[in-house]
Amino acid sequence: MTPSYGFACTEAGAPMKPWSFERRDLREDDVRIEITHCGVCHSDIHQAHNDWGVATFPLVPGHEIVGRVVEVGSAVSTYKVGDKVGVGCMVDSCQECPSCAEGLEQYCENGMTPTYAGEDRRDGQPTYGGYSDQIIVRDKFVLRMPENLDLAAAAPLLCAGITTYSPLKHVGLAKGQKLAVVGLGGLGHMAIKFGVAMGAEVTLFTRSASKEAEARELGCTHVVLSTNEEEMKALAGTFDFILDTVPVPHDLNPYIATLKRDGTHIIVGVIGPLDPPVSGVNLIFGRKTVLGSLIGGIAETQEMLDFCAEHGISCDIETIKIAEINEAFDRTVKGDVHYRFVIDMASLAETKQAA
Amino acid sequence: MTPSYGFACTEAGAPMKPWSFERRDLREDDVRIEITHCGVCHSDIHQAHNDWGVATFPLVPGHEIVGRVVEVGSAVSTYKVGDKVGVGCMVDSCQECPSCAEGLEQYCENGMTPTYAGEDRRDGQPTYGGYSDQIIVRDKFVLRMPENLDLAAAAPLLCAGITTYSPLKHVGLAKGQKLAVVGLGGLGHMAIKFGVAMGAEVTLFTRSASKEAEARELGCTHVVLSTNEEEMKALAGTFDFILDTVPVPHDLNPYIATLKRDGTHIIVGVIGPLDPPVSGVNLIFGRKTVLGSLIGGIAETQEMLDFCAEHGISCDIETIKIAEINEAFDRTVKGDVHYRFVIDMASLAETKQAA
Repeated sequence: MTPSYGFACTEAGAPMKPWSFERRDLREDDVRIEITHCGVCHSDIHQAHNDWGVATFPLVPGHEIVGRVVEVGSAVSTYKVGDKVGVGCMVDSCQECPSCAEGLEQYCENGMTPTYAGEDRRDGQPTYGGYSDQIIVRDKFVLRMPENLDLAAAAPLLCAGITTYSPLKHVGLAKGQKLAVVGLGGLGHMAIKFGVAMGAEVTLFTRSASKEAEARELGCTHVVLSTNEEEMKALAGTFDFILDTVPVPHDLNPYIATLKRDGTHIIVGVIGPLDPPVSGVNLIFGRKTVLGSLIGGIAETQEMLDFCAEHGISCDIETIKIAEINEAFDRTVKGDVHYRFVIDMASLAETKQAA
Repeated sequence: MTPSYGFACTEAGAPMKPWSFERRDLREDDVRIEITHCGVCHSDIHQAHNDWGVATFPLVPGHEIVGRVVEVGSAVSTYKVGDKVGVGCMVDSCQECPSCAEGLEQYCENGMTPTYAGEDRRDGQPTYGGYSDQIIVRDKFVLRMPENLDLAAAAPLLCAGITTYSPLKHVGLAKGQKLAVVGLGGLGHMAIKFGVAMGAEVTLFTRSASKEAEARELGCTHVVLSTNEEEMKALAGTFDFILDTVPVPHDLNPYIATLKRDGTHIIVGVIGPLDPPVSGVNLIFGRKTVLGSLIGGIAETQEMLDFCAEHGISCDIETIKIAEINEAFDRTVKGDVHYRFVIDMASLAETKQAA
């Protein structure tokens, strides 16, 4: 086994604290990665609180992982020691079902293996995430980080990035089309950047007038207060696509009304009921759709990283020490972050000395 | 004005009874049609009860109209006296907006003119539907009935037919794909016929075990009791498309679970909230969509009629006299019809003698 050290939550709702644990020995197709940075995703908090009822404890969160390869298994030919790499939300899948065959491992019909709170397909051991000094991952689930991307600012691309990039590619967002983004957080700010880079005219729907300036800096041409009923009504039939990043139940109907005929309201955040209910009228009278989308496949994640390198896109982040993680969780819940906390994993050593 | 005679409902919830009224004089681009048959659509009943709050009274329902041309305006070149023709849910649209330009008049951005309970675009007079001896309609909104279709059995194609044909074409239902139809009524039985004719493997979801034999006669290879939770669970990830014809709010989630990844749940009937709410989880974990669809455009309605002629498709109907309309409404509400009532308009004369 491989002695590892990180921060864990021992039971639902407990604070994150230092934890020594073991990861598996390197297999022939494994890559061992020294983690330099890990993003703090809102779902890390949901899992630490066991909001979805699927968490396992002790829980080592983190699925926006970047670092350097420090060891490779004998069968690994794609990576070598020293490579800058990343790991996202998945560390394995069956590789045999139609979804895996199409490079859509996130929809693996036998269930993909999540980076943490999952179970390794071969030895049944729990998976532990990136709030840690290192991680051991099957080569096929390791991403290559383009040289010109800052590792810290690129970490959240592995979840917030691909979660917004993938649906925009899936629906075929094209130059000149009108995209509205709902919510300006970790996902929302990436959705804006991708929409702008793909040539769309991007509008932000927000409940905070204070976000207007920052949204425009990110490239939005319009910012709309979603609480302003008149402003919303004036936008009826405007957008080709809405990318809705809000992670809690909310009323989709006022947004759907702003879609053109044949428009699509994409949800990526609501892990729960679409409550209040979507009106059938709003979909039927306009041939509109509500579409769900989950992260993206491995090949598409690599494509997204390369797209970011080409277009100079990364996340806007606040770097923290891991000792600040509990405060970062609290601030994330409050939406008090621009736009993603990223843990500098060098700070782990300090906590080891303290412990 | 053109003296007309039909059956009307004078206020919300009142019974249908004989009514003499006037239609406009023939304009140069109008076709005057002697109505031989008119289908009884569930929405006729909703309108007679003003369930949607948009009805106008006196209300002459009926938008599944077939008959023969008896007069044409001076500018009409596409139809001549004696032609067998049909009229569906629309009698006009702006002809200028992008939707009209694409032949999607049902989504006219200035509002299409409904066949009844609408307002004529030129003179502002109310529109009256097909429970009547004749109708005067702009040539562009008249359909040509193929010679080999029985007029009575073809009448419901103008609404029930196009409402199910259009979304199946829109999503590109292809040979060998798996289609599930929810509900076996006027729309459902047409959805099955179209699905089979397009080469799909068609399953019926129903709450009545008694419908199995008839569904198989219509061409279904599988019939599933939607109330049987185990049977539903066993179908997880099975269907490419679901065409849901149920006209009242119901739980879509058990159906969505039976869709493959990238599957589409099409709603055509729910003029109200999707309550209980659709779960975001069910859409996100499978990149699934809920899609609304409203009837079809004029060109597509003609295409559908020609498709029916080619494939020998028509509706299964029970012909009634117009004096039986109130009983037919009651039976339709109870689902006691196989699968559509069609009024033989020759029976109007009898009521005139009686009155």
